[in-house]
Amino acid sequence: MSRIQIKDLLKLEPSEQSVTAKGWVRTKRESKNAVFISLNDGSTIHNIQAVAEPGQVSEEILRLCTTGACLRIDGALVPSQGSGQAVEIRIARVEVYGAADPEEYPLQPKKHSLEFLREIGHLRPRTNTFSAILRIRHALAFAVHKFYNDNGFFYLHTPIITASDAEGAGEMFRVSTLDASNPPRTEDGRVDFSQDFFGREANLTVSGQLEGELGALALSKIYTFGPTFRAENSNTTRHLAEFWMIEPEMAFFELEDNMDLAEQFVKYVIGYALEHCKDDLDFLEKRLQEEEKNKPQNERSLPLSEKLNFVVGNPFERITYTEAVEILLKSKPHKEKKFQFPVEWGIDLQSEHERYLVEKHFKKPVILTNYPKEIKSFYMKLNEDGKTVRAMDVLFPGIGEIIGGSQREENYEKLLGRVNEIGIDPENLWWFLETRKFGTAPHSGFGLGFERLVLFVTGMTNIRDVIPFPRYPKSAEF
Amino acid sequence: MSRIQIKDLLKLEPSEQSVTAKGWVRTKRESKNAVFISLNDGSTIHNIQAVAEPGQVSEEILRLCTTGACLRIDGALVPSQGSGQAVEIRIARVEVYGAADPEEYPLQPKKHSLEFLREIGHLRPRTNTFSAILRIRHALAFAVHKFYNDNGFFYLHTPIITASDAEGAGEMFRVSTLDASNPPRTEDGRVDFSQDFFGREANLTVSGQLEGELGALALSKIYTFGPTFRAENSNTTRHLAEFWMIEPEMAFFELEDNMDLAEQFVKYVIGYALEHCKDDLDFLEKRLQEEEKNKPQNERSLPLSEKLNFVVGNPFERITYTEAVEILLKSKPHKEKKFQFPVEWGIDLQSEHERYLVEKHFKKPVILTNYPKEIKSFYMKLNEDGKTVRAMDVLFPGIGEIIGGSQREENYEKLLGRVNEIGIDPENLWWFLETRKFGTAPHSGFGLGFERLVLFVTGMTNIRDVIPFPRYPKSAEF
Repeated sequence: MSRIQIKDLLKLEPSEQSVTAKGWVRTKRESKNAVFISLNDGSTIHNIQAVAEPGQVSEEILRLCTTGACLRIDGALVPSQGSGQAVEIRIARVEVYGAADPEEYPLQPKKHSLEFLREIGHLRPRTNTFSAILRIRHALAFAVHKFYNDNGFFYLHTPIITASDAEGAGEMFRVSTLDASNPPRTEDGRVDFSQDFFGREANLTVSGQLEGELGALALSKIYTFGPTFRAENSNTTRHLAEFWMIEPEMAFFELEDNMDLAEQFVKYVIGYALEHCKDDLDFLEKRLQEEEKNKPQNERSLPLSEKLNFVVGNPFERITYTEAVEILLKSKPHKEKKFQFPVEWGIDLQSEHERYLVEKHFKKPVILTNYPKEIKSFYMKLNEDGKTVRAMDVLFPGIGEIIGGSQREENYEKLLGRVNEIGIDPENLWWFLETRKFGTAPHSGFGLGFERLVLFVTGMTNIRDVIPFPRYPKSAEF
Repeated sequence: MSRIQIKDLLKLEPSEQSVTAKGWVRTKRESKNAVFISLNDGSTIHNIQAVAEPGQVSEEILRLCTTGACLRIDGALVPSQGSGQAVEIRIARVEVYGAADPEEYPLQPKKHSLEFLREIGHLRPRTNTFSAILRIRHALAFAVHKFYNDNGFFYLHTPIITASDAEGAGEMFRVSTLDASNPPRTEDGRVDFSQDFFGREANLTVSGQLEGELGALALSKIYTFGPTFRAENSNTTRHLAEFWMIEPEMAFFELEDNMDLAEQFVKYVIGYALEHCKDDLDFLEKRLQEEEKNKPQNERSLPLSEKLNFVVGNPFERITYTEAVEILLKSKPHKEKKFQFPVEWGIDLQSEHERYLVEKHFKKPVILTNYPKEIKSFYMKLNEDGKTVRAMDVLFPGIGEIIGGSQREENYEKLLGRVNEIGIDPENLWWFLETRKFGTAPHSGFGLGFERLVLFVTGMTNIRDVIPFPRYPKSAEF
């Protein structure tokens, strides 16, 4: 008899039919009249309860059925006597695939801190919280592909190892096969990267955008969805050294089209999670309420489903950077000198400013546009005022910037001017510049940090908890 | 008026309605009575023809409408006079977004060699061949996600930067932020990787399998789809330093289930391409026939669609390694000493042997199982004979191994024995070993090299031509 996933078992009509379930024991409870085993196989947040009458399963076997053990259970699917589930398995036979010594197995049925679970990254997917996060992460990733596929975009695999740096800044990881201890040297004593694998110094990509533009200027609409890297020494709850980005890039899109797409896109993927991950979201919503129950009412988060439905159901506010600065200058925290950082036109808005705009002033996601060129990247299209660029940042409550994008500078001379201005050698970007020389087109794009999205949707607060195996300073375990 | 993609324009009923197309000029042809512009926007292999009567567009504009120029064309959609297309645009107005000086633009309307196109990777997506490949690559990638999503698998992002080596061998790229010229040293003079970003030596992953197993032993069925890396100095048509792999991993799957899944999976994705990429496949089929027209009949490939339909429509042959060796020993090329490499039980089958089995003997895809343990990885489940492991390789005509997988060794003692046998420090894999200690389960998985699949489906022969920006020794351009 073949195994049925627990997710599907729980939907069946119980009619004494023989079924087989396989999974890991979450809890075992023994009473005088029966043994109750809760089994989970990761297909759903819910367990199936399996019940054995005394003597049905040998003592020897039962002793092995502790939390974490992996079992095969055969039995009849019957209506459940207990509350909370419609069906249960009346055990006919148990096979133990693998025990889990209660003295050693770290995931006992009690509350574990997220910090502790990070240390056992190989086992944490077996917890309710992390399996829920991983299932939601999957659903969001699938929704990303489905959205772009349905809208005529082509998935483009931009390179991970690259010899260029999209941002002209950004701390990067070097990729090399040279002998680290004794690298070959040039005559003047420098490391001779011409003898390295790629014949030059190479790094891990910080963004697929530049190559994405090459795709868009041929196929019209492309998107990337791949890992990107920052070698920043930041030990925060918001930064990872390795994270996944989604970067659509569209020929013939101007800034307005770009904003429309960004808004439509995030609403779609969040809506998809609401539709497909109800049980997991319910679980995480309760988890969050439990976490915050000791906080004063006004510091508690909105219930997760309410927050997500609000984002999906309401238009994002769209204002310019200049308008945002004006709002901030008139704001109470500014007048009362409550902001840590001063506000004036030209500053890079700080997290406290963004939060004020999103959480206090507008109380909804905000798209900020037309930033001063000095605080944005060289490839963004200059406005006619000569001072601002056609950038856009989408700001989310609790998260801050979730999307950053722009219309791109499509004019060869202007782009070359900016490249020189910020001190990039145009030789390094010859191929990028050439796209403006041959059949250039107005085009736009943006990037969304996938983990930020997962944070927002799951209501988690530390980015290390929404990626299976986080990479950050001093940590590359598992 | 908003732009309509050319793919959609070509499907409209022509009724003189006003339309806007945007794209790149493929060709311009002038006759006494009209100017014909073929425009392509990458949404389809097909161009739309736009026709202007004399005087409708200024000479100054027309002069700029050369191959590669990017245009906006407004006009009426009318029935086409010419053959080969149902509709065309009667031009009312042309706007030139970007010219492409014919003296400089490398992609003139003539045949370019694939070698030349590799040197202009930033422009080659604008050719028919590469845009077709990229659209098919997209469709295959989407089909991968759809297949696994529809079958209850969860997409797991395994780490790219890792401190472990799944194969226990494999040449790897080092990832570091240490000063390459003057790295910190330990007292005994070695490079002090404890001061590196991750506090230890780190590399680019060669496989997500080990972490994938952690996911499967919690969520039951997962798959990865991400970049993997090999620092092998191979300049062949079949190897890349950076390529994309798909690695499903399933708890409770034995070798038979694994084979069933692998066969079902590749048939699904190839079938998806046949259904969704007909125009592009037709184009590539003709391209291949053109390429091979000077070859003798018996050296020509099957027509692409015939080859793909054959794979989708026929069961794969399943035989053991031992049976395969017997067939090879009895084969004509062996008896006539035509094989370059000798055949005997225990050898790692060479490409010539695999090709004989697939292309000559069975004339269909073959799944080989139960290889000698010495030539396979340490994590594969040992058979009861003590000599062979429950490995499986799927061999495809023209490609060789497209999938490699196995049932995994789930027994802690046996796995530890193998780890020690091949000289891996068990400390480095403590987390992998622990999964066999706590709730171990029978499980299986495999890996498919995505570019090998794209090669097979597109009929291309060099792997550098099926990934947008190939990485190989001495090359990390773009």
